[in-house]
Amino acid sequence: MNAIKIGLLGLGTVGTGVVRIVEKHQEDLMSQVGSPIRIEKIAVKSLEKERSIAVDPAILTQDPWEVIRHPDIDIIIEVMGGVEDTKTYLLDALEHGKHIVTANKDLMALYGSEILAKAVEQQCDVFYEASVAGGIPIIRTLIEGFSSDRITKIMGIVNGTTNYILTKMSREGASYEDVLKEAQQLGYAESDPTSDVEGLDAARKMAILGTLGFRTNVELRDVSVRGISSVSKEDIAYARQLGYEMKLLGIAERHDEGISISVQPTMVRTSHPIAAVSGVFNAVYVYGEAVGETMFYGAGAGEMPTATSVVADLVAVIKNMKLGVNGLRAIVPYKEKKLKADDQVFYKNFLLLQVDDKAGVLAQITQVFAEYEVSLDSVIQTPNAQQPGAEIMIVTHLANKASMEKVIKHFESLEVIRRIKSSYRVEG
Amino acid sequence: MNAIKIGLLGLGTVGTGVVRIVEKHQEDLMSQVGSPIRIEKIAVKSLEKERSIAVDPAILTQDPWEVIRHPDIDIIIEVMGGVEDTKTYLLDALEHGKHIVTANKDLMALYGSEILAKAVEQQCDVFYEASVAGGIPIIRTLIEGFSSDRITKIMGIVNGTTNYILTKMSREGASYEDVLKEAQQLGYAESDPTSDVEGLDAARKMAILGTLGFRTNVELRDVSVRGISSVSKEDIAYARQLGYEMKLLGIAERHDEGISISVQPTMVRTSHPIAAVSGVFNAVYVYGEAVGETMFYGAGAGEMPTATSVVADLVAVIKNMKLGVNGLRAIVPYKEKKLKADDQVFYKNFLLLQVDDKAGVLAQITQVFAEYEVSLDSVIQTPNAQQPGAEIMIVTHLANKASMEKVIKHFESLEVIRRIKSSYRVEG
Repeated sequence: MNAIKIGLLGLGTVGTGVVRIVEKHQEDLMSQVGSPIRIEKIAVKSLEKERSIAVDPAILTQDPWEVIRHPDIDIIIEVMGGVEDTKTYLLDALEHGKHIVTANKDLMALYGSEILAKAVEQQCDVFYEASVAGGIPIIRTLIEGFSSDRITKIMGIVNGTTNYILTKMSREGASYEDVLKEAQQLGYAESDPTSDVEGLDAARKMAILGTLGFRTNVELRDVSVRGISSVSKEDIAYARQLGYEMKLLGIAERHDEGISISVQPTMVRTSHPIAAVSGVFNAVYVYGEAVGETMFYGAGAGEMPTATSVVADLVAVIKNMKLGVNGLRAIVPYKEKKLKADDQVFYKNFLLLQVDDKAGVLAQITQVFAEYEVSLDSVIQTPNAQQPGAEIMIVTHLANKASMEKVIKHFESLEVIRRIKSSYRVEG
Repeated sequence: MNAIKIGLLGLGTVGTGVVRIVEKHQEDLMSQVGSPIRIEKIAVKSLEKERSIAVDPAILTQDPWEVIRHPDIDIIIEVMGGVEDTKTYLLDALEHGKHIVTANKDLMALYGSEILAKAVEQQCDVFYEASVAGGIPIIRTLIEGFSSDRITKIMGIVNGTTNYILTKMSREGASYEDVLKEAQQLGYAESDPTSDVEGLDAARKMAILGTLGFRTNVELRDVSVRGISSVSKEDIAYARQLGYEMKLLGIAERHDEGISISVQPTMVRTSHPIAAVSGVFNAVYVYGEAVGETMFYGAGAGEMPTATSVVADLVAVIKNMKLGVNGLRAIVPYKEKKLKADDQVFYKNFLLLQVDDKAGVLAQITQVFAEYEVSLDSVIQTPNAQQPGAEIMIVTHLANKASMEKVIKHFESLEVIRRIKSSYRVEG
């Protein structure tokens, strides 16, 4: 029986996991696909690096082209990361009729449509389950599980680093800076954490999920992004006091007038299933018109969870090869994209204001909300022990984004308001 | 463009949802499968029944054979329920080259292997996503999403009726009988609730999940079953006091020595993600060696959620038809079945004993545990205000089932124990 030969681009965390699973589960995999699976060649940065697995040095190379152009290799697994060079490699591989499995969210968010179009042209598979939410098979679920439904909302905790930081801040009352430092020491955060903490990583994943869920071509620039670096421990304490958990949520919504996609720190009602997702875990909440509320929970990163998704994709590619149907099941977005304008995007808001402690302040403030037709759910005024003046917490009803921006602009010039301490989206 | 013609067996709750989705999402479905989908014929019990949807009376028939043998129909959607007759219909349909989508857990749990074997023989598809956990695409997830992993544990809240009853008992301190009556009035429980409350419905679903997760042919008789009718509000109050929620859990486990599958009321640590699944919602927790902890949550029943899964299967069948690969992706269990003996099944236990309130009782009891090598996690003795004597709550460490049965047998003959009030499996 001829082995199916695989080429690996990259042998870092995920690549190591892929080698482990292919070796350890070889028998189970064979039972499913009918052939042995052999890793034929691996492109690595350094040939000398010490590795936690034993790999035959003869299959290692520093030249990615040796993998991509290898005549016996049918499937390329890309786990090296990077965007521009990687795109060149993968397009070339497709050009040569090779199928792709990738865990690269940056690449798929930026050039997914180009790569998928090339795959269709070449009748090749490109699968990327591992690019979003690691071990959770959410891409399959959106493509196949909900093919019959009209998905109207996707909310995701799709970045483990920020969820770890926010969970820790919430549970221990610690500051953002302290927890970030600890997360860096534990390896949960990069030494340059920008991509995670500023929400860019989550935005890429939401572009992918939005594209699949709404069957329209969501691009990274369509996602409005705010990170967690401005979230204070005080904000989290207030949120908890009101019955909310602070989460970095990606939110993609669809209504008749269009779609909106955003990533921002969000106060989530504790009774919402996604509020309980803690630590480095990920979860994607999907609301479909017919199916209603669903949620998918699991490890969002890490060697073995991510490799599980990569190898599941590999199994799917090989099954397609055996049936001769590669590239024929690709989901090409077929809906025209219509982005909502800011006055079509509605959500609840939390505002924390530091104000003068004198009569009539509340009246002035509520007057501004009324002027822009934003109605209020609750207003709580508390004297502040640390600072002069008082604090006012406000939760609005659903309000459109444009009006809320006008309210905030107005507040900035209102004399009785000393400072807008924080503002957050509210869900649930 | 030729329409794909569908025959429906049954037009009850789920059938109605299928008709609704096929009509309402016709355009989206066409974009995915490339053909219109038409419901050609529907077998119903009564032609006169008033229905919540408008259906052309000309396509209704009281004769299932008119649907099964209809020459233009390619796909049969079976949502009529029943086992023996239904099996005859479906085997005949397969014999005539028709593909099957079914929501019938009873049928699949009892005759799944026979039906799937016939499908492979006839190169036909048989899909049954809706048979377990309604709108949650858990069957796809086990077959495809985790094809690369070795699943070692599946825990499911797969019966909405019992979860509704237990949730209500827990939140309101109400009795089983009162909540059951209310559930029946609300339509959440049948007038004969036996199949739900005695755990049979959940057992059928666990047989299906076990078969897919462990890739071995789990049969209904392999599942040990205990229902919730003996759960008292006092038990639930004790559970909460110790930090547990009472849930009817299906638990399928795999170790090197074999598999075990059971359904029983279980005390689940509140920090476990499945403990928070409340009301009529379902959830399936899956632990894989590589992927670790995952959980899939959503509506377990109801017209539209269940129909979502049925129509998603329909889309998959039609895509396979277009590619000419029906029946070629069937998962046939390939592992030999090895069931664990009782002394190989380990779990924690909760016991509530009513005992004489005198010196030495605790020593006698702990002596029995020691004799059968069951070690204890905690023992709490409380005077009972309502009854003479005292109560002892015991939580064991992991103990094998055979030993625990011996402990309980021994307790029954121990004079100082007046009554074994309750015993439960403990998880988390």
